[in-house]
Amino acid sequence: MSVTAPRGFRAAGVVAGLKDSGTRDLAIVVNDGPSRAAAAVFTRNRVKAAPVLWSEQVLNGGRVRAVVLNSGGANACTGAPGFQDTHATAEKAAELLADSAGEIAVCSTGLIGERLPMDALLPGMDKAVAELSRGDGGLAAADAIRTTDSVGKISFRQGDGGYMIGAMAKGAGMLAPSLATMLCVITTDADLPADTLDRALRAATRVTFDRLDSDGCMSTNDTVLLMASGATGTVPGEEEFTALLTEVCADLTRQLLVDAEGASKAIAIEVVGAASEDDAVTVGRSIARNNLLKCAIHGEDPNWGRVLSAIGTTDAVFEPDQLNVAINGVWVCRNGSFGDDRDKVDMRPRDVTITADLSAGPHSATVWTSDLTADYVHENSAYST
Amino acid sequence: MSVTAPRGFRAAGVVAGLKDSGTRDLAIVVNDGPSRAAAAVFTRNRVKAAPVLWSEQVLNGGRVRAVVLNSGGANACTGAPGFQDTHATAEKAAELLADSAGEIAVCSTGLIGERLPMDALLPGMDKAVAELSRGDGGLAAADAIRTTDSVGKISFRQGDGGYMIGAMAKGAGMLAPSLATMLCVITTDADLPADTLDRALRAATRVTFDRLDSDGCMSTNDTVLLMASGATGTVPGEEEFTALLTEVCADLTRQLLVDAEGASKAIAIEVVGAASEDDAVTVGRSIARNNLLKCAIHGEDPNWGRVLSAIGTTDAVFEPDQLNVAINGVWVCRNGSFGDDRDKVDMRPRDVTITADLSAGPHSATVWTSDLTADYVHENSAYST
Repeated sequence: MSVTAPRGFRAAGVVAGLKDSGTRDLAIVVNDGPSRAAAAVFTRNRVKAAPVLWSEQVLNGGRVRAVVLNSGGANACTGAPGFQDTHATAEKAAELLADSAGEIAVCSTGLIGERLPMDALLPGMDKAVAELSRGDGGLAAADAIRTTDSVGKISFRQGDGGYMIGAMAKGAGMLAPSLATMLCVITTDADLPADTLDRALRAATRVTFDRLDSDGCMSTNDTVLLMASGATGTVPGEEEFTALLTEVCADLTRQLLVDAEGASKAIAIEVVGAASEDDAVTVGRSIARNNLLKCAIHGEDPNWGRVLSAIGTTDAVFEPDQLNVAINGVWVCRNGSFGDDRDKVDMRPRDVTITADLSAGPHSATVWTSDLTADYVHENSAYST
Repeated sequence: MSVTAPRGFRAAGVVAGLKDSGTRDLAIVVNDGPSRAAAAVFTRNRVKAAPVLWSEQVLNGGRVRAVVLNSGGANACTGAPGFQDTHATAEKAAELLADSAGEIAVCSTGLIGERLPMDALLPGMDKAVAELSRGDGGLAAADAIRTTDSVGKISFRQGDGGYMIGAMAKGAGMLAPSLATMLCVITTDADLPADTLDRALRAATRVTFDRLDSDGCMSTNDTVLLMASGATGTVPGEEEFTALLTEVCADLTRQLLVDAEGASKAIAIEVVGAASEDDAVTVGRSIARNNLLKCAIHGEDPNWGRVLSAIGTTDAVFEPDQLNVAINGVWVCRNGSFGDDRDKVDMRPRDVTITADLSAGPHSATVWTSDLTADYVHENSAYST
């Protein structure tokens, strides 16, 4: 169901021939209204792909009729010709839908620094628009945006009053702050204006995608797009809608985490006792990015010294001799020194929880990451060749 | 020769039994004067090992008679008992040298979070002091401070007027800013006061050890100690002395780089055209810490898109469409887009140079790192077990 779970949306995913593998590589999601209110968050990387530059302009208007997404090429660092390719993609979709290119968003994912094969992409769009459907289209679209994802990622929830939120996402490497590197399209048949959607989306992504940091690398293409058709006429309260949207984003965040490239462990870093939420996130990210710790977790070694070493590089409020660390519930570090017997820690489960208590205040935050493995190295050293 | 190349110094390296491997694990370097002026730089990690906390106090006095160094245990995150162990080590050295513990520096390296076996370390010091010599002592000391280092690292240079600078270092993993994670002892028989030594050491380390970033992880134990015996009576100019000291530090930095844990490539990241030196260093570090790029270099893939992606995460002054990147001399990215044919890049040599031109000013800096390999993962996932 994915993005077509809510009413008012059709989708398709087809083989355009962008990928050597011959698998689906082009998706389109169309909002048939009556509303076409939309909001989005984009990568904070200053080197932005052409489709991000284009879609930022589209979203300034707060309205999106359709989004075209391709895997098989990021269209990043491709200069003015690359931007023209994105523009041509939007124009082609507008022509096929008898609509305005100014309300067509575009997303791309794949290798940076290469032009897209437009002679394959544009004909693929004819095919995609011809196949638009509510039935199978949602799953086909989720499949078409995969790169190194081992599975498609979808989610949907029903809200009070009968409205739905549906979503699809891709992302398996380069998951980092300012969004895990990912494309995500979220749809709803609730009737909410663009400014409400924008606030809800920022609130939801701030505590979900933004706190997934698989390898510290920030993509040039991250996009999370939220489109509302208003097809049910239901107008949910902003707080309730935000909560449901956050659930959908959290579900997808979890799916991205467990499918991270080469990962064998899904690691939740809970920072508690922080003087501020910002401190908690800063410390969580520092731990999440410590390569030595990520190797240790891979080796099922509860190496809490590397946790303290990572905390020590931050400017968060704490005293070194008041730090406590638990790994999978065992407080192996108390007051900045060794605590309970590290042999009591069961490191075998795929899920690992590291709790860092700063003893400096009431605030907390959770950041998610994965372990660093030889498979990660293999996958990413051979990616473009 | 290492630290005993300059006159006025004796050293030893012995087997105290701290390491399971049964190899040398305890070193001592003694300054017989007539001067004992000294300076040091320490890790900027806020979680500091006991020997760092101790030695910082010693260095406040600007005088060091001797330094005791052990591998086989970092004595970090060991609380008050760990600090007492460091204190007892200094007291024991003072007793053996008939001197003051307040002028004995201590350095430790190894696993974090475990007490040192003092019942092995203290008797080992008797042995070490008994073996102090100018002849073989320098090399034995350099050998004794190794952890995962495959070779001992030493360097020495002769200055105008006949004075010498000698040095030994260890460090193979956790090499990061605010010093590569490392211990380094530098000696000279020039006659310079502590404040001159301090300025010279900070100037030299800022452009050498501080710009080596093998895995982004900052240690709890980093120490670079400079001791002057004044035994030649030579008083070099500060500028000349700083230049020679920088040569020694650069030589050791190179040795640390090529011996980094699991590395197959030594990568120099030259950032040019920066608006400030700070910008150049910031961009260099961001590139050096990009796991995806480090994997690509391991796979001999000149993936310049990952370089741009790393630059884009910084707040340095640049325009995305004015960035240029060369890999091993081939300008594969021009004006933020693809440039010369990437197939022209010869990635086979161990040395790889990435040049990033920000087109924003006249400043430059070089940061060194290594590639990310499956061997790095293996070495660091099994380290404590």
